[in-house]
Amino acid sequence: MQEIVSEIHSWMIAAGEKIKENLNKESLIVETKSGRKDLVTELDKATQDFLIEKIQAFDPEAKILGEENGLDRLSDFSGRVFIIDPIDGTMNFVLEKENFCIMIAVYEEGQGRFGFVYNVMKNEFLWGGPEIGVFCNGKKIDPPKDIALEEGLIGLNAPMLMHNRHHEVEMSERALGVRMTGCAGIELIALVLGQRAGYISNLAPWDYAPGGILMETLGLKMANITGEELALDGRELFIGGTPTAFQELLTIANQ
Amino acid sequence: MQEIVSEIHSWMIAAGEKIKENLNKESLIVETKSGRKDLVTELDKATQDFLIEKIQAFDPEAKILGEENGLDRLSDFSGRVFIIDPIDGTMNFVLEKENFCIMIAVYEEGQGRFGFVYNVMKNEFLWGGPEIGVFCNGKKIDPPKDIALEEGLIGLNAPMLMHNRHHEVEMSERALGVRMTGCAGIELIALVLGQRAGYISNLAPWDYAPGGILMETLGLKMANITGEELALDGRELFIGGTPTAFQELLTIANQ
Repeated sequence: MQEIVSEIHSWMIAAGEKIKENLNKESLIVETKSGRKDLVTELDKATQDFLIEKIQAFDPEAKILGEENGLDRLSDFSGRVFIIDPIDGTMNFVLEKENFCIMIAVYEEGQGRFGFVYNVMKNEFLWGGPEIGVFCNGKKIDPPKDIALEEGLIGLNAPMLMHNRHHEVEMSERALGVRMTGCAGIELIALVLGQRAGYISNLAPWDYAPGGILMETLGLKMANITGEELALDGRELFIGGTPTAFQELLTIANQ
Repeated sequence: MQEIVSEIHSWMIAAGEKIKENLNKESLIVETKSGRKDLVTELDKATQDFLIEKIQAFDPEAKILGEENGLDRLSDFSGRVFIIDPIDGTMNFVLEKENFCIMIAVYEEGQGRFGFVYNVMKNEFLWGGPEIGVFCNGKKIDPPKDIALEEGLIGLNAPMLMHNRHHEVEMSERALGVRMTGCAGIELIALVLGQRAGYISNLAPWDYAPGGILMETLGLKMANITGEELALDGRELFIGGTPTAFQELLTIANQ
């Protein structure tokens, strides 16, 4: 592994160990953010602080974009940027004690270089980038088959399916089935491993950047719902998938 | 463990090993049943045949109700009845190569005695019954907290949420979130482990009987959507949950 890859990998394993140690503490403090379904715990914040400390020791010049603690906007993507999601799937973390990910993306001069997605309780760790390919727990993986929407599952979120503003019902009916995991990292891992035809959700940069680098490395496609490049600037409606299913989803959404 | 419990446990572990050995064979033959989203593979059938052979050697008098091979109706529940689902979540089995369960329920004179739900690729095996309590991988588990709908997640299936015939949108909005796993066994395990407030789906007896025995042993509730006892006779709309969330879901469905 390149030095930066093995460094980041080791930080994330250490962060996962800390989370596992604290997972079953009765004292887990849960706060709400924008509403009662938008949670944050002290472990989200502590994990982000831990990762920031590691990043700053490794590269004091690097910029950081992250979900918690007021780091959620960045206007200048020159140089090296770390995009971090300390706990993706906080609702699952609180209610299920599993099905959450630690995620980091590394951008250089605005280009995605490395992505890391770690499903902590499953011990499933994917990383990679355009120079090195994509690895799952250390084993290099092949690009998934380019299946069509009618040959695969799609990930969706419940509000989008209920409101059906972009023909999500038609997407769901054409696919073989719908899955809702409550964790973008798990959905992007599923895409990378060929377990999904597509995924549609409302995502922030730290939700899609780490897995997105893995997707694009393997020839999978992603964009916002109008087909434009994702802007790494606030929440957007995200469409990702195999080349074929991605086009189908975009066409259905914009008919 | 009682003899019957350790026997069934050992059959299911052996069945799981056979499935793991054959999971990645390119030659997996997939057929459709009632429509393109209703799949069966030769491994579903082979697993059911394997379990039936074991049951018949153990208790030649026992009756069998099972998903495949024309065993899907039973009018007489006297004596001992085995209800088996060789692969619950066949779509996941085919497309994800994980997130499926082997399940067995044992009824005696119409009463649920023992339930077994084995999430094969996760190595998560729950079993139990009213006489012995409920175990997860050999460790006895406590009844989950009686959370309300607004404090927890619900499992739903996509067609029910899309068609909203029983106010599923209102159920979803009141809950903290919706999950769709495509596997009844996984949803019932989640209920038993306290990871869900409720679950609503369209289920056959082999989908709900094994996990249902575990649920009732721990004080969780289940019924058909009008609140009547599930009949073990064909598909029914299923509502299950904590005592509090179960009542809320029934009230919303029947308002």
